[in-house]
Amino acid sequence: MEDRFEKGMSILKITNPDNIESIFTEFEDIAPDLARFVVEFPYSEIYTRDTVDLKTRELCTVASLTTLGAIPELKSHIEGALNVGCRPTEIVEIIMQMSAYIGFPRTIEAMSAAKEVFKQKDLLPVND
Amino acid sequence: MEDRFEKGMSILKITNPDNIESIFTEFEDIAPDLARFVVEFPYSEIYTRDTVDLKTRELCTVASLTTLGAIPELKSHIEGALNVGCRPTEIVEIIMQMSAYIGFPRTIEAMSAAKEVFKQKDLLPVND
Amino acid sequence: MEDRFEKGMSILKITNPDNIESIFTEFEDIAPDLARFVVEFPYSEIYTRDTVDLKTRELCTVASLTTLGAIPELKSHIEGALNVGCRPTEIVEIIMQMSAYIGFPRTIEAMSAAKEVFKQKDLLPVND
Amino acid sequence: MEDRFEKGMSILKITNPDNIESIFTEFEDIAPDLARFVVEFPYSEIYTRDTVDLKTRELCTVASLTTLGAIPELKSHIEGALNVGCRPTEIVEIIMQMSAYIGFPRTIEAMSAAKEVFKQKDLLPVND
Amino acid sequence: MEDRFEKGMSILKITNPDNIESIFTEFEDIAPDLARFVVEFPYSEIYTRDTVDLKTRELCTVASLTTLGAIPELKSHIEGALNVGCRPTEIVEIIMQMSAYIGFPRTIEAMSAAKEVFKQKDLLPVND
Amino acid sequence: MEDRFEKGMSILKITNPDNIESIFTEFEDIAPDLARFVVEFPYSEIYTRDTVDLKTRELCTVASLTTLGAIPELKSHIEGALNVGCRPTEIVEIIMQMSAYIGFPRTIEAMSAAKEVFKQKDLLPVND
Repeated sequence: MEDRFEKGMSILKITNPDNIESIFTEFEDIAPDLARFVVEFPYSEIYTRDTVDLKTRELCTVASLTTLGAIPELKSHIEGALNVGCRPTEIVEIIMQMSAYIGFPRTIEAMSAAKEVFKQKDLLPVND
Repeated sequence: MEDRFEKGMSILKITNPDNIESIFTEFEDIAPDLARFVVEFPYSEIYTRDTVDLKTRELCTVASLTTLGAIPELKSHIEGALNVGCRPTEIVEIIMQMSAYIGFPRTIEAMSAAKEVFKQKDLLPVND
Repeated sequence: MEDRFEKGMSILKITNPDNIESIFTEFEDIAPDLARFVVEFPYSEIYTRDTVDLKTRELCTVASLTTLGAIPELKSHIEGALNVGCRPTEIVEIIMQMSAYIGFPRTIEAMSAAKEVFKQKDLLPVND
Repeated sequence: MEDRFEKGMSILKITNPDNIESIFTEFEDIAPDLARFVVEFPYSEIYTRDTVDLKTRELCTVASLTTLGAIPELKSHIEGALNVGCRPTEIVEIIMQMSAYIGFPRTIEAMSAAKEVFKQKDLLPVND
Repeated sequence: MEDRFEKGMSILKITNPDNIESIFTEFEDIAPDLARFVVEFPYSEIYTRDTVDLKTRELCTVASLTTLGAIPELKSHIEGALNVGCRPTEIVEIIMQMSAYIGFPRTIEAMSAAKEVFKQKDLLPVND
Repeated sequence: MEDRFEKGMSILKITNPDNIESIFTEFEDIAPDLARFVVEFPYSEIYTRDTVDLKTRELCTVASLTTLGAIPELKSHIEGALNVGCRPTEIVEIIMQMSAYIGFPRTIEAMSAAKEVFKQKDLLPVND
């Protein structure tokens, strides 16, 4: 078990080093297993496989979370995308691409979330 | 106007040469403009930009359509992904990654759709 | 109680005279109350009010069911829309309008559903 | 009519005695009938039937609202679940179970909502 | 190109004169093309066609955005509906009608959004 | 690892003994890990915990899958619910309860799915 947890944490240290602790703190007094599941399932079982590189994985997760309208997780994965080497303009481009599949309301909501992340990291304006 | 249409068609000839006509045939006696919008908006305005390559775009669209549960469009974009050079194992990996964000029911449904496309193209079994 | 049921049935006789019985038949040996709820709640409580006319109501329901991706109910309400005087071209136009809010996959799916209904009623091609 | 309303209110006095008035106050100057529908339809027609006990009903509603991502109603039904005798650990367990069907983003969002309700009622930490 | 943009802006000046600039300001330093797409695609290509009047279009969009749970865009289109001549009571009625198709949680959320818009415009209470 | 798999299989032998093999067969030549994840994650990590009994868990899953509109998985969990001792009338009641939270279209679709399962198992008509 420890092994799976450690494996997941090693990926999270690459993708989200700044807020790696927050999900444990958030759920320690209500559902610590939920935080453990997040580390052990997606990060240990999936993100560790080298079929697809982390950059492509994070852009695909940005696409999925934009489609789902899951704004807090989207912001966290926009940070993850930046941390594994995606340029802001690539993230913007993928969110914009989603407009064809989900329409403008959810796309606009996701772009505003991206803007907040970029602003906080002093990455505005976004240029090619 | 012609220009935008031609530009979109030039991408569709790369991503979906085999079924490029089907959406026009489907809607010619009810809503020809809807088919035109698909060519002119996502394909002409978005897929033509070189910020992100077509392979990454198609994988992100596979992620979005899996999340959305839009099976017929998903199958068409799995074909598109193959046509721009994605390996079956990469498509499988991205669908599998979605399980963390959308749960197993929609992931299973999307994987079955991928299996149908691969079967038809004699691409089973999928190996790394 | 009878009163509410009768009131709902009087609307259904206008909007869906041909398949008014099908929901009762479908659920009589499993959940007859569910069929009763459909008659008594939306049709008796809502569709009977004259704030909005039946034509506008049915177009708004077409918009909602297209957005929801609920194809069997969508087909039934496309029939309802025709029965209260909507022209096929208006129904097509509202489905097409949805593309901006929900993207192309669900819009295309809804348009194909409309085409099936119109074909069965010999209403193709749709012209202004 | 009075009868249906009274019947629904008698259940609401059990499940949500503290905020029974809020939906009427919220909508009295815009859509009083919407508040009436909530009392008369789910509470009078459905929750009064004894096929399934209130505890199981509330847990199933927690499952549905977690799946839907409807946070304000979820909080209200977490209170309802507590009021009909569910232990916090059962509510946490059902939300956690949802991760398999809807993925982590919506599950995390629902767990944070549960934490807010439990905190306000001094029910943290949650133990078995 | 200019032409399509101008055409879209001419509709937006009717439906949303007060906040026509906000989407450009919001995205000018991150994704100006997304703002352009909104003007050029739904407003220029769709809302300009006279098959369906603007009042019906806006009510159908209110129905769709209520179904989608897209609250900021919903508020903007409730304003749009008022600006093209819909009475508050019609908007309320269409939101209420949605309860049959999407259930109470999303309907309640949309009605609260409508209440905020009406309050800001001093349109409460809503009467027939 | 073996342990987690065995633990999950021991629950699946109770809930779905008849179709325990089908997910492995379905995905063996495309994504065998996806089948393994389903056994190891929800069944091993969640369904084995005794905070909530299997009957309540399956009814909550029926509620979630009805809300999600995931019909093939819903049918499989209706079978699961029957296998752990739920009466058909309880399953019907929970699906009916969902109408308040998700509206009639998805509820009707789920009830038709339940009817198919019950018919195949000769459990119609459903009585209290």
